[in-house]
Amino acid sequence: MSETAVPLPVSVPGSAGVRSAVEERLAVFLDTKACWAAAQGFPAEVTEVLRDLVLGGGKLIRPVLCVAGWRAAGGCGDEGPVLRVAVSLEMFHASALVHDDVMDRSATRRGRPSAHEALTARHVGRPDAARLGACAAVLVGDLALAWSDELLHTAGLSTDRFAAATVVLDEMRTELMYGQYLDLLATGRPSTDLNAALRITRFKSAKYTVEHPLQLGAVLAGAGARIRTTLSAFGLPLGEAFQLRDDLLGAFGHREHTGKPNLDDLREGKHTVLMALALERSDSVQRTALRRLVGDPDLDEHGAQRARDLLTATGAVSAVEEMIADRHRVALRALDGACLHPAAVAVLRELAATAVVRSS
Amino acid sequence: MSETAVPLPVSVPGSAGVRSAVEERLAVFLDTKACWAAAQGFPAEVTEVLRDLVLGGGKLIRPVLCVAGWRAAGGCGDEGPVLRVAVSLEMFHASALVHDDVMDRSATRRGRPSAHEALTARHVGRPDAARLGACAAVLVGDLALAWSDELLHTAGLSTDRFAAATVVLDEMRTELMYGQYLDLLATGRPSTDLNAALRITRFKSAKYTVEHPLQLGAVLAGAGARIRTTLSAFGLPLGEAFQLRDDLLGAFGHREHTGKPNLDDLREGKHTVLMALALERSDSVQRTALRRLVGDPDLDEHGAQRARDLLTATGAVSAVEEMIADRHRVALRALDGACLHPAAVAVLRELAATAVVRSS
Repeated sequence: MSETAVPLPVSVPGSAGVRSAVEERLAVFLDTKACWAAAQGFPAEVTEVLRDLVLGGGKLIRPVLCVAGWRAAGGCGDEGPVLRVAVSLEMFHASALVHDDVMDRSATRRGRPSAHEALTARHVGRPDAARLGACAAVLVGDLALAWSDELLHTAGLSTDRFAAATVVLDEMRTELMYGQYLDLLATGRPSTDLNAALRITRFKSAKYTVEHPLQLGAVLAGAGARIRTTLSAFGLPLGEAFQLRDDLLGAFGHREHTGKPNLDDLREGKHTVLMALALERSDSVQRTALRRLVGDPDLDEHGAQRARDLLTATGAVSAVEEMIADRHRVALRALDGACLHPAAVAVLRELAATAVVRSS
Repeated sequence: MSETAVPLPVSVPGSAGVRSAVEERLAVFLDTKACWAAAQGFPAEVTEVLRDLVLGGGKLIRPVLCVAGWRAAGGCGDEGPVLRVAVSLEMFHASALVHDDVMDRSATRRGRPSAHEALTARHVGRPDAARLGACAAVLVGDLALAWSDELLHTAGLSTDRFAAATVVLDEMRTELMYGQYLDLLATGRPSTDLNAALRITRFKSAKYTVEHPLQLGAVLAGAGARIRTTLSAFGLPLGEAFQLRDDLLGAFGHREHTGKPNLDDLREGKHTVLMALALERSDSVQRTALRRLVGDPDLDEHGAQRARDLLTATGAVSAVEEMIADRHRVALRALDGACLHPAAVAVLRELAATAVVRSS
């Protein structure tokens, strides 16, 4: 699942404020849970590992977009409820990341040990430590999911706003899980099927990372159909561009920027748009080499470099760059003359730029 | 996690009606999701496997207790909302079971392949089928958890009732996850620590299976502190008795009744009250034998019979039977003169009997 270590540039107006407000609330919530757990005699590692993850320097792009959607739809006044919903969104994301890393057997996340690795390290003396760590991470992820609900239930929303928010959230979760499911089934067997890769991109990432957070903020401001259509017309292509950039970073990014090894995606053999295009555009020699390298769990740096060279040589990299630029343009065009709050439009434009042109 | 294949006897007044109403609503909900998924081109196996689980003959004890709590607290009139919440509870339980079976590597559930085994079977041609099945089951469990929320969000509760219900549900989920976490950490290393075993029993099962469902129903009927205290005084000991019976069935039960092999608990080396008492009461020869047998992943039927003989010979089995009878008495005493609806009290008494004296 797309995720990186470096925060969005603080140059995006308001995003730094949203980030610090969300982080503060996440810390307070987890502190309260930690105190309660200590009083019950429950293990401290649950909240400690979760805290390391959610306060470990994530971009908090979903909370930022949620608040941006709220402002774009004319939200003003007390930011408390929308921030609390944004916090709930980030807690849900933590759940998805923890389970995703268990499924992908990813050793790192945001430049640190992933949750299951951190939990394994806590029980390193036991013969079954790795398995224990994975099982514990399943429970920590479940708990984070339950806590995202608790944050939502206690956000102080009016009945109408709550009902509208849960429609968006319920759809978001279902579509994300199915997107992840498609990704899971396709992993290890990349093909030339560009449409399948685009569907994974759309459900696993574009809607979840961009469109739904914007929609969530918008409904919290009472947005009508016109505003919501505009935000989807902006958010869906931007989300696709975001994930396409993530695919490139997954193969070509630098670990010190992305916080995770750039061998993982290649070793797993994810069925990305990048891979689909490379396989489609390769000659038979290139294709044989790509199929041998990508998906090899023991791929070394030398082999990875060979795979990267092939991705470039087939023209797949420049094709994906074009797709990103196209989607960025389509997203920005949706904002032209839109009935959104003008200050928020400026923020959305900047967010689009930082999401699409980034090294992490 | 405790679960068996055979329904509660239909002799408990109203429970058969609740069960069929809940099953009908679960079927309709999953049919709707299956249609939606088909229209989106998503894999059908997600809802199929979930459907096999939730309609696979579970006791539906939590929904039955939720409705019983509602009636006990004077709930009357439209049963629609409380049934919908009961359905949500069962969907949450499905999520917990799916993840639990992944963690325990249980091959069967309710006499059929567990979810991850069923999903593995769907992809049997792939070299990584077992791992794919486990990962897919993590996602299916996540989806069931998200869908339990959707069912709750659309239950048609008033604002006050919804707020009261979520307080109970949020506590239930958090306590269950921590209970499971304690269980996970203690598995494979049973000891003489009876208190630790009782804590696991309480959080993993007693509160989750009995006390919280009753409380949930009660708050949906607008119950005050007195009724809620009574229901806890009934529900907590009954829940402990239920789990203690489950521990006995886990070691001594018959597969055709419980729906799962009675070797699993012994092979896993769960830190149950039964084991704690057996270790405490055994002489050094018995203790050495118990420690060798219990927790052995390759334990065969011969070794299991030897372990069962030791559990009996140490007096642990009869001690657990006494604990069950004590708790059953305490639970029933809480109903004496209670300010609960009289017809509901009769149902609670019968539910107590069927939960405590059972072969499945």
